[in-house]
Order: sequence, then structure tokens, then C-alpha cells
Amino acid sequence: MAKNLTKRSEDYSKWYNELVLQADLAENSGVRGCMVIKPYGFSIWEKMQAELDRMFKETGHQNAYFPLFIPKSYFSKEASHVDGFAKECAVVTHYRLKDDGKGGVVVDPDAKLEEELIVRPTSETIIWDTYRKWIQSYRDLPLLINQWANVVRWEMRTRLFLRTTEFLWQEGHTAHATKKEAIAETEQMLDIYAEFAENYMAIPVVKGLKTESERFAGALETYCIEALMQDGKALQAGTSHFLGQNFAKAFDVKFTAKDGKQDYVWASSWGVSTRLMGALIMTHSDDKGLVLPPNLAPDQVVIVPIYRSDEQFELVSKVANEVMSELRAKGVRVKFDNRDTHKPGWKFNEYELKGVPVRLAIGPRDVENGTLELARRDTLTKESVSRDDVSDIVVALMDEIQKNLYKKAQNHRTENTSEVSTYDEFKEVLKTKGGFIYAHWDGTNETEEKVKKETKATIRCIPLDAKDEDGICMVTGKPSKRKVLFAKAY
Amino acid sequence: MAKNLTKRSEDYSKWYNELVLQADLAENSGVRGCMVIKPYGFSIWEKMQAELDRMFKETGHQNAYFPLFIPKSYFSKEASHVDGFAKECAVVTHYRLKDDGKGGVVVDPDAKLEEELIVRPTSETIIWDTYRKWIQSYRDLPLLINQWANVVRWEMRTRLFLRTTEFLWQEGHTAHATKKEAIAETEQMLDIYAEFAENYMAIPVVKGLKTESERFAGALETYCIEALMQDGKALQAGTSHFLGQNFAKAFDVKFTAKDGKQDYVWASSWGVSTRLMGALIMTHSDDKGLVLPPNLAPDQVVIVPIYRSDEQFELVSKVANEVMSELRAKGVRVKFDNRDTHKPGWKFNEYELKGVPVRLAIGPRDVENGTLELARRDTLTKESVSRDDVSDIVVALMDEIQKNLYKKAQNHRTENTSEVSTYDEFKEVLKTKGGFIYAHWDGTNETEEKVKKETKATIRCIPLDAKDEDGICMVTGKPSKRKVLFAKAY
Repeated sequence: MAKNLTKRSEDYSKWYNELVLQADLAENSGVRGCMVIKPYGFSIWEKMQAELDRMFKETGHQNAYFPLFIPKSYFSKEASHVDGFAKECAVVTHYRLKDDGKGGVVVDPDAKLEEELIVRPTSETIIWDTYRKWIQSYRDLPLLINQWANVVRWEMRTRLFLRTTEFLWQEGHTAHATKKEAIAETEQMLDIYAEFAENYMAIPVVKGLKTESERFAGALETYCIEALMQDGKALQAGTSHFLGQNFAKAFDVKFTAKDGKQDYVWASSWGVSTRLMGALIMTHSDDKGLVLPPNLAPDQVVIVPIYRSDEQFELVSKVANEVMSELRAKGVRVKFDNRDTHKPGWKFNEYELKGVPVRLAIGPRDVENGTLELARRDTLTKESVSRDDVSDIVVALMDEIQKNLYKKAQNHRTENTSEVSTYDEFKEVLKTKGGFIYAHWDGTNETEEKVKKETKATIRCIPLDAKDEDGICMVTGKPSKRKVLFAKAY
Repeated sequence: MAKNLTKRSEDYSKWYNELVLQADLAENSGVRGCMVIKPYGFSIWEKMQAELDRMFKETGHQNAYFPLFIPKSYFSKEASHVDGFAKECAVVTHYRLKDDGKGGVVVDPDAKLEEELIVRPTSETIIWDTYRKWIQSYRDLPLLINQWANVVRWEMRTRLFLRTTEFLWQEGHTAHATKKEAIAETEQMLDIYAEFAENYMAIPVVKGLKTESERFAGALETYCIEALMQDGKALQAGTSHFLGQNFAKAFDVKFTAKDGKQDYVWASSWGVSTRLMGALIMTHSDDKGLVLPPNLAPDQVVIVPIYRSDEQFELVSKVANEVMSELRAKGVRVKFDNRDTHKPGWKFNEYELKGVPVRLAIGPRDVENGTLELARRDTLTKESVSRDDVSDIVVALMDEIQKNLYKKAQNHRTENTSEVSTYDEFKEVLKTKGGFIYAHWDGTNETEEKVKKETKATIRCIPLDAKDEDGICMVTGKPSKRKVLFAKAY
């Protein structure tokens, strides 16, 4: 049985770590910084993958697979890219072990690679080296490719899902004939990420542009979606990069246009990762455990039988099985937990901990009365519902719970969003409530760096919907054209 | 436009390589031995994954994800396991690059790992290190886990799909309370692989046990399915291993049984990989290109419009779109290739090369006559069919083509299976026709090794359905209880 979780109000960070472990989502492995994604956690990730994959394919993208390893020399070809990733690369130097004569193994010094291989931290370089062979003419464009893969970035401080040395993600890499098309693609994918976050994860997000210092290494613009967690910290949930012709030039990828002229190809790349699991957990969950939006819950409903005898078990099981069939016929993912190894109380706790949106309990008296007990995970309310109406009620609830979670998250964000004029106000808000803070900024790296150093808050993005307004930078008093979004962040 | 393929009869190996490239399935990358799986190839692999994943889940398995890296010391814990894999391991020794001062990067000698990490060649060791934490009691068993992942085995001679340094696969790892259950699981998964091969890939397979020398490193028994390619060579298409308590002992994974006694857990592991793509290609394809069974074809039907004017294009497009809708409503995967950048002849060749099971062509005269031209990829036959009946005909054809491909492969195998009594006969068959050869064997490593050395043929398996019959080994004349299956193999 699950131990009690630390309360969010006591220690948010501890609450998160305990929740991830106790809800069977993931755990640390024997390999520094690498996690094991447990079956329950992985089944949520699979739901995310399925929806995203569908959205990518509906917009004309195809999946492919590129090598895990990248020759070291590829990295140096795009100058800012190598600067961005060189410090966190796992490097393969040898291709064989040998017997150490003492029952163990050692690296075989005779099996040293001529050129070291980097375990991909992202795949722009290996992919653009391939695109050179695939792209000759405008007929080959646009090239719209996505890859589901594992990547490795050597992290010193790691946290399950939020920051791990190895993580799972998808990375889209597209090639276009014109700058305009490449930007349109970059923006389209940002919209898809925002739509996924809002409609499936029930997480409201702010769409925006990163400042120059926070841009992806090798990009001309980085678009992002930013979400607000319950502790008032921001989490970057997805990025979409306009790469200009940087990688095309670095890897010499040219195409012949309709008019016969040759030009370098324009590019985008975009990705979301298992980090989304962290966002999902930290947006909705409570002191009793995980809370899942129905659209991503592996089990949307669990039915728990209440009984004292075999006879009673048969009686309630009959109704439970009928209800299960009805619900399945209506497209609801439902599980009947008829294990006799655990008591109902244990099961109630277990499914609360695991965030199953709706729990139905049925005992002999319910059978008699033609009812079931329905408990909602999002509101923690219980009610008795009629056997005859239960499947209609549950179907309607799936939609209601999904919307309610979004609304709750949106209200939380509204309550924790501030606009400030002065740096003192800014620091005061950070100290007292945190959250999203809109403020004027003079557009310089220096000011951004100063705020970061002094307050630990960063510019999360320049929101796409920021209205033009003349103002003055809260720090320097220099002119500013629009407010930007600050927050402390994961 | 595709160049002409080399004919199988001229150079089978060259034909295979050209086909993989020209049909857009895969290509070599800039990384030695690692392939790029191109979108069309990957979409076939995705169909395979989807069906296998469904079959695994229907039999109670769940997906999870374990680290890519394995600490070197884990390998030494199971003695035969390390022997089997040590010679082909990619080893990560450093975690950072640094500027070389000349515009490039070098490995940072200050970022050397204390313990080297192995890029997983298979995951038994990291998974059993995790299972120790997951398994305490009989209530935690059986544990039925599968992982879809990339693995790396350093290969000196590689071929697209058949043998690559990095490949994609699934690996199942299960834990059980009893030996009997673990063996039942091992056999169940072999049956699932055989069912998948036969019903989806349309490839008949022989189920059997590997000899001791061919067993998986760390297994007590290795079960396999063996298929026969068109050139008379065998291909191992999947393996399922009974691991006994070897890994449980190496990683100290014990459980408390119902009666309170402690014992080590029993295990299985099983996997199929992107190698299946090689089997699929080499079983069915012909001198015109790929031939795909409908159950795995990304596009089961392609419709090609024939026209000379915009007016004609509109006319035929109207019917084509209607037929497409009808077919989709019946669950057929169909594509209407209305690109004006390529001529019909080019498209015909293209879809033959890519193995689309059925091609429908429609021109103005067809519209007038209420017909379409239907071409089958498997038989290369064409006929005119009525517009009104076309969707029923196509639906029936999907099933017919699937069965026909299986039957063709089965006939080929029957024609190329021999039984021999003497070693001379054996060598003669190998020289003249190759294929599967059943012969008596005395059960010793020495004889197996001698045959391999002298003829390059290996024992593919001891077939599960081999009938008991007293005989004498074709090589040594020693007694034998059953015939085993020999062949040259990929």
C-alpha cells in the first residue's frame, strides 16, 4: 500500500519526487541520471505519442529513423550548434571489451575508434548530412520528417522526467524551398504543440519567442510554449525552431528551383519530450497523488467490487462486467479490478494515487438498489448513480473532467500572473507569490542577464500575442515596445 | 525514375541492395554500419510494430523503458552473457567535448567516466538489476514487460536491415514464479512470432530449438523461427529464450512464494528486430521490385489517373475520389496519386518498385465504360473491372493476395527442402540447390563445427515438430534420435 505523500505545501519538490515513484511512473536507475520509465508511466507516454503522431501525420509528416551516433566532425560544421552541445555529450571511443583475466572486463585499447562518435543530443547534423543526398530539386520539397528517438545530454543535476541524461522525444526536421514556408511550418508545429497541451494535457500555455540568449544552438528563432506549474514556476513544454539556411549551408544542401536557379534549403526543427510527463504531473496532481485528464488516462474508469462472500462477488461482478461492456462500447477505457489479493480500501487509494479520472464501486446493496457509487478524481466528490444511466453519465463526465482540469489550471495561472512596472515590484512579486510576471524589458542581453543573476527569474518568452505598447524597461528605464514574460523556471 | 534492378538470377545480393535503396526503404549513413531508415521503409516497420504491439498487449504484456547505457560491471555478473557480447560493444568513456582551438572539437580528457558505460546490445543486465527492486513476492509475478528500443552490436560486415551496428527491435523480459510458467511464456512468444510471420508477413517458418553453440548468451534454451529466402539461404526471424534462473541469480532477484519460502525468479526474454524487413523483402520481392503483403502494406491500393487535359483530369478525378472514399469506408488503405509532376508510366514503375499490392488506373474511356484497370503486384496481371464492383473486388483481393503470397513462399520452401542420409548427398544438395536440408546429427558440438567449417551450412534448429526416429548421424555414423534442420544462413 502507498505511503502518505508529502504535502505540496510542505515541500513541493519532495512531493513531486515521491509522487513519481509511488504512482509507478518512473524511477532512477543504476546509471547516473538515466531513468527507468515504469509500465504505468510509459502507458501515459504512449497515449501522448499516439495523439502527437496522429497530429503530425495529419499535417503531412512522415516518420523515419536516423543513427544514434554522430561522428564528432559533423558537430563542428555548424559553429553555434557545437558550442551549444559540446559540453554535454556522451562520447563513444571504443568498440570492444576484453577479459581482464580476473573475471571482469576492461575496454580493449586495440579497439579505439579513429573518429569518436557522439551519442545524439539532437539530430540536426546527422539528418542534414543525409538531406544533402535526398534533396536536389524543388520537387523534393517540402521534406517533412519526424523521428521518435532517445537522446542523451549529460546533465549534472537530474530529476525524473524534468531533466534526465537520457530522455525520449520526437524531433521534426523539415526542409523548404522558401523562408516563408519554413517559418509557416515552424509556427504550425508550435500551434500543434499548443493544441496538444491544451486539448489533451489540459494545460494552458503561452506561445512566444525565446530571446537571443535562450535560442536553440543553430536557430534564427526559437518558438516555445510555456506552462505554469502549481508552485509558481514555469516549464518550457515544447520548442519549434526556425533554422534559416544555417544547416543547409553547413552541410551543403542546395536545390534547383523551378526557374533553374540554385539556392540553399530553408529549415525548421521542433520537439517535445518525456519532460511533458513532468508538466502533466505538476499541473494537475494533488496531495493524494496523480490526477490525469481523461484524454490521456490509460484507464479512464476503474470498477471496484465490494463483497464479503463468493456469492456476493458473483452478484456484483455480473453487474460490473455489464457496465464495463457498455462503457467499452461507448469508447471508454475501463478496467474491472477483480483481484482478490487486495481490499477495496487499498484499491481506492491505489487508483487515487494513479489518477484514474472516475472510480465506480459496486456492492450487494448497490445491486439491490440498481445503483453504483461514482467518485471523481478531479473534485474528490462521490455520488450514487443509477445503474441504467451510469454509462451515459460517465461518457459526459469524461468531457466535463477534461474541461474542468483545464479550467482549474487556467484559473491558477490567472491568479498567478502579474504585471509590474518597476524592478522593485518585480522582486516583491517573485518573493511573495512567484508565477508569471509581465514586464517591460529593453531588449538587451545585459539586462536579461542581470535579472537572472539577481532574481533567478528568466525571460520565458516574448509572447506572440503581446500587444504593442510603448513603455520603459523595469530595470534600465530604456524604451520598450512590449511586455515580455518572466518567471522562475524548471 | 528508378533505374533497372539487377535480376535476382544474375546477382541476388546486388539485387537486394539495389532494391532496398531504390524502393526508398533504407540507406547507409555517414556512420559506419548504421543505417538511415527512410520514410517508406519506416512506415512498413510501423505496421509491423503496431501488429506485434497489439499481440503483446493482448497477451498481458506492458511496455516500459530502460536506460540506453549499461555500467560495465553489470556485464560481468552473468558469465556467459559477457562472453557473448563483450566483443561487439560500443563503449562510452567520456561525457564532454571541448574546443580544440582550431575550430573543431576534441574529447575533454578531464571528463573521463569513472566506470565506462556500454551502449546496450540487449538489456537483460540493466533490466534484471531493476527487477530486484520490483519483485518481492509471488504477488509481483508474473512480470510481463516489453521494450521497443534501439540497440548496438559492433559488426564488422554490415548489410542494410540484415546486419547493422545499430538496429531497432523489441525485447520482452519476463519474470515468473515457476520454471514451468517461464517455459510456457517462452513458447507462447515463439508462437506469437510464428503467427505474425505467417499471417502478416506471409512467411512460412519452422519453429525449433537452437543447438547449444547457437544459444543466446545466458540462456538455457533458445527457441527460434527460421525462414527460407528465395536464394535458398535461411534467415532467423525471431528468438525466444528460456533463461532459467541465471539472471535472477546474477542480480539476486528472489521472491517469497505463497508458502513463505524464498526462491530465485525464473525468466524469459524474446525479440524481433528490423531484420524482419530483410526477411520480408527477400521472401516476396521480384525483379521489378518490392512485393508487399496487404496486411503490412502502408498503401494497399494506389489509384493513378490517366488524362491529357484539365477537363479529362477532372472527369477521372471525380471517379477516383469516389472509389477512394468507398475503399476507405471498407477499411482499405488507399492513395490517389494526382501529382501532375510525373507521368502515368513513371507512377506505374514507382508503385511496382514499392510493392503496392493493387494499382487502379482510370482514364476518360474507363469513365465512359464504367470501368477501371486493376493490376495485381503479386501476379503482375491486369484486368478491366466494373466501377460498381471495384471496391468489393479489391476487398476480396486483399485477402487473396495475402494468401497467395504465403502459398508461393510455402511452395518455394517445399521445393527447396531436402532430406538426406549421407554427408555426400548433403554436400551435393548444398552445391546444386541449397535450401533447407533435414539430416541426422549425432548431437555433438564437434560434428556441428565440422559441417560448418567444411560446408558453411549450420544447424538452423532442432524443429519442434521433428518426429522421433532412430537414425545415424550423416557425418559420424553415431546414433541420432531425430533429423535436424541445416542450411546456409544470413
